[in-house]
Amino acid sequence: MRPSLAGWMKADSKSASASAPGSLMILGEHAVLRGRRAMVCSIERRAKVEVRRRNDGRLAIRSALGRWETSVTSPQRDDRFAFVVETARCCGFVPGGPGLEISISSRIPPGVGLSSSAAVTVATAAALLRLGGRMPESEKVFKLALEAVRKVQGTGSGADVAAAVWGGLLVYCADPLRVDRLPVTPPLVVVFSGARASTAAAVAQVERRVRALSRLFESVFDVMDASVEEAVPILKQRPPDWKKFALLLDVNQGMMQALGVVTASLAEAVRRLRDDPGILGAKVSGAGGGDCVIGLGDLQGPTPGLRVLDVRAAPEGLQWHE
Amino acid sequence: MRPSLAGWMKADSKSASASAPGSLMILGEHAVLRGRRAMVCSIERRAKVEVRRRNDGRLAIRSALGRWETSVTSPQRDDRFAFVVETARCCGFVPGGPGLEISISSRIPPGVGLSSSAAVTVATAAALLRLGGRMPESEKVFKLALEAVRKVQGTGSGADVAAAVWGGLLVYCADPLRVDRLPVTPPLVVVFSGARASTAAAVAQVERRVRALSRLFESVFDVMDASVEEAVPILKQRPPDWKKFALLLDVNQGMMQALGVVTASLAEAVRRLRDDPGILGAKVSGAGGGDCVIGLGDLQGPTPGLRVLDVRAAPEGLQWHE
Repeated sequence: MRPSLAGWMKADSKSASASAPGSLMILGEHAVLRGRRAMVCSIERRAKVEVRRRNDGRLAIRSALGRWETSVTSPQRDDRFAFVVETARCCGFVPGGPGLEISISSRIPPGVGLSSSAAVTVATAAALLRLGGRMPESEKVFKLALEAVRKVQGTGSGADVAAAVWGGLLVYCADPLRVDRLPVTPPLVVVFSGARASTAAAVAQVERRVRALSRLFESVFDVMDASVEEAVPILKQRPPDWKKFALLLDVNQGMMQALGVVTASLAEAVRRLRDDPGILGAKVSGAGGGDCVIGLGDLQGPTPGLRVLDVRAAPEGLQWHE
Repeated sequence: MRPSLAGWMKADSKSASASAPGSLMILGEHAVLRGRRAMVCSIERRAKVEVRRRNDGRLAIRSALGRWETSVTSPQRDDRFAFVVETARCCGFVPGGPGLEISISSRIPPGVGLSSSAAVTVATAAALLRLGGRMPESEKVFKLALEAVRKVQGTGSGADVAAAVWGGLLVYCADPLRVDRLPVTPPLVVVFSGARASTAAAVAQVERRVRALSRLFESVFDVMDASVEEAVPILKQRPPDWKKFALLLDVNQGMMQALGVVTASLAEAVRRLRDDPGILGAKVSGAGGGDCVIGLGDLQGPTPGLRVLDVRAAPEGLQWHE
């Protein structure tokens, strides 16, 4: 898959702009960190990044989080912009260079598990590559963005990065890297659990369980992998058997419970989603410990107390802007 | 394992008596119906059966459920005593024969998932075999009782029958038959969910899921089997690492959720058990859809609303009585 031809025309310009979508983990979170396949889906909400050359040796970043400036030669650290600065580093713009202005405008709610960091990182990498005049192939954007994400986080499957680049519903394997796009957009409802999750804490929790009982948890990851395998033919049908696909979500929720990352508020949100007659299946999305829950279908009933987010699945991936 | 020598002395007597314990499924329910291993544990509460020859061609059965009499030549059917009559048939006492009186006294609460039917069936088979003067080997009692249970229910793993015969904490595989006894009695808390379960309905529910997505659910059963395998070395340690064992219960609960047999009231009972600081892990016990939940440990807090049963694990299996 390639971006539109427009992306190939400019060379070494003064400014460049790109946008990328947030995403939701559909199946196989945690398992994807251990060689298994996951399913991830991009959402309608996107982050747009504009980059512009400066000549004053400054690196300036602007976003809804504020404005921040540092020396392009020896940049300070700021947690708000760690992904962006690291991306500039991976793309060769920092340290050194004549200076850079990066403007971020994101419609992805941050910190609720919608992969806003991956979207910003991908859009930044794409815009910077274009600014440098290089051929912005999707694979190159993916590789650089994943490198930046892993440097900041220490870990990361890259599924969210792949969704930000290619968009749509993807089957993703990190190692060996493989991305397959399914030609369908699932009807998703997204609910915020009320608590923000620490991905690092959830990953550490799973790590402890795996260390204690490795054979057992390897078999749990095998179930998640099998669920992705079962999903592919279901989603290639026209129309897909959504009820059957929903069963895969429910099974994955059981696996997340086995991994110990389903908090009481997440379990409650899943239960309430499943109670709605329009919802075919539901599960935690992402590492767990907090953040979001997804349901497959359309909410029919009233949902007092359920914090439904205005977020839908959408097929568009990375886009360059004039 | 063999019963005490006392059981071998009598031959073709006028009466005989035996008792057997109820049991709780600890790990691997449903998986055990599909070639995997399960773990089952006998409880303190037992059913005692006394059988006595009659010469009037009548089959009379007495229990807390009432008194019932029929012709020993062509016995009627009565749902209350289906297991007992079927056992008499499997042991060759019905139809025909000079007549039989069977008295049942059970301290196992019926219909809440404590395998009272298996206990009564085993005690009846043992008493009848002894009445017939045969050598009441445990294997023979097991085989006849399992035959009777399967004739009445149409299905049955036999794990509860094995627990009633051999007692204690057993690793059980139905096919090929294998029973391994672990030398430990787990600290169990038993809670009634408030709803009685239909094992047949729960098994049918799982069957539907397996038919829809066989590879996926086979991998779920593999997780359950792996949990039993992991349990064995943990339980052979002195003392066992109960915290680690509890993790296996939690993982199995996730699998039961994946199988779709955890009702809201079961999930709630598990959640509340886990909230108690003395409980290390908890899960549904049995086919699901209702019945009981078990917790590993000792309840510390008050438990308003939790219907804790006066039931404990105990190592004794089948016993013959003078």
